[in-house]
Amino acid sequence: MLYIFPNLLDKEQESDEFFPMNLETYVSKIDTLVAESEKNARSFLKRFSFSEERSFRDIPIKLLNEHTNDEDFKELSDLLHKDKKIGLISDAGLACMADPGAKLVAAARDQNISVKTFSGPSSIVFALIYSGLNTQEFTFNGYLPRKDPELYQKLKTIDKHLQSSKHTHIFIEAPYRNEKLIESLVKNISKSVMLSVSCDLTLESESVITKPLSSWKQDKNLKRYHKRPCVFVLGKEPK
Amino acid sequence: MLYIFPNLLDKEQESDEFFPMNLETYVSKIDTLVAESEKNARSFLKRFSFSEERSFRDIPIKLLNEHTNDEDFKELSDLLHKDKKIGLISDAGLACMADPGAKLVAAARDQNISVKTFSGPSSIVFALIYSGLNTQEFTFNGYLPRKDPELYQKLKTIDKHLQSSKHTHIFIEAPYRNEKLIESLVKNISKSVMLSVSCDLTLESESVITKPLSSWKQDKNLKRYHKRPCVFVLGKEPK
Repeated sequence: MLYIFPNLLDKEQESDEFFPMNLETYVSKIDTLVAESEKNARSFLKRFSFSEERSFRDIPIKLLNEHTNDEDFKELSDLLHKDKKIGLISDAGLACMADPGAKLVAAARDQNISVKTFSGPSSIVFALIYSGLNTQEFTFNGYLPRKDPELYQKLKTIDKHLQSSKHTHIFIEAPYRNEKLIESLVKNISKSVMLSVSCDLTLESESVITKPLSSWKQDKNLKRYHKRPCVFVLGKEPK
Repeated sequence: MLYIFPNLLDKEQESDEFFPMNLETYVSKIDTLVAESEKNARSFLKRFSFSEERSFRDIPIKLLNEHTNDEDFKELSDLLHKDKKIGLISDAGLACMADPGAKLVAAARDQNISVKTFSGPSSIVFALIYSGLNTQEFTFNGYLPRKDPELYQKLKTIDKHLQSSKHTHIFIEAPYRNEKLIESLVKNISKSVMLSVSCDLTLESESVITKPLSSWKQDKNLKRYHKRPCVFVLGKEPK
């Protein structure tokens, strides 16, 4: 059995607001937790009560991240057998949304192992909802290309798509490049398109600003986004 | 204040598994609930305890759906003022994901009213996670065109995109047309592409089948999907 557990967007938070009520029932019974990093896995487990004989420190943690090679992955995949209860989390938010977890789901499917997922916070989904832009059609683009001319080409394609459809485009960026990305958007996307920047989602410092690129162009304080986790949403007002 | 509440994917379900722990704290304090239908709004409210003087029957319900005209919408939008606490739900799953709710979020933004969303089940998100297909880039297409040649054209565009990228495509269909849609996919999308059909998500009868279109072509029992809610996901295995 593979359980896909939600994680918080920030590990300092209280879980009451974000985790489903009976998540503990499932987490408390896992044999192994698969996670992107040991540290975040322990922070996650610490939130739950285990049976008398077990503490959160006793749950074995296996890593699945961009460094996991085929041999290590084979070992993870083998764990799914023998009636083992395997939990899977990402470092933040819903596992298997833009992280390597999907590979483990595919391995479970190939072995006819049941998979169960739970609801939880996702920065991609929250940013889309908070944008107030059209949600009838949308694309999550992951990271945009780092370098010109690939970035320029990609933005031109997105701009064309925005002009000819009701589509909404979502993407993320390495936090230290947020200002640069907004500047690129201002330069390469039509001024009438709305850009929503969701920053520090679910934190005290959360901020969501949605305004046309013409208005972002006047914004002289893009430095405020430096090194803070942001999700970017481009699109039109809903009809 | 506008609260975007999650709803269950099926109203017969227990909420423990899907709603965040302290959702009741917020729901119990709303002045008005905005919903797609009166009936589903009452089913939702019935799950929560209100203060001594109020029962779930006392919460005013206002409709926001595809029949809402500009005048009615203006009335909803005016409600957001005067320190009113407005809740918003869809008939099933996360509000503002492929439903008219985004319009109310946009109205709140224009009036500088705070918006708060919660985690909850989303058939689109669950289907993507369960597919085990690549989640680094994905598009939600909403409903595909009903009729040839528009449908044919759209499927050809998606097929081309699938061939030239790592993209995953998600879409939905009116439940009585599910078999027809799978047949169209078999006919118009490359045989090596994986199709995942998630049906009755979160219900006892939940089924998720992910296999190449070549294998769907052999499937002689597509009638089993007739009139059941399905989400369709097309893509490649994750790397």
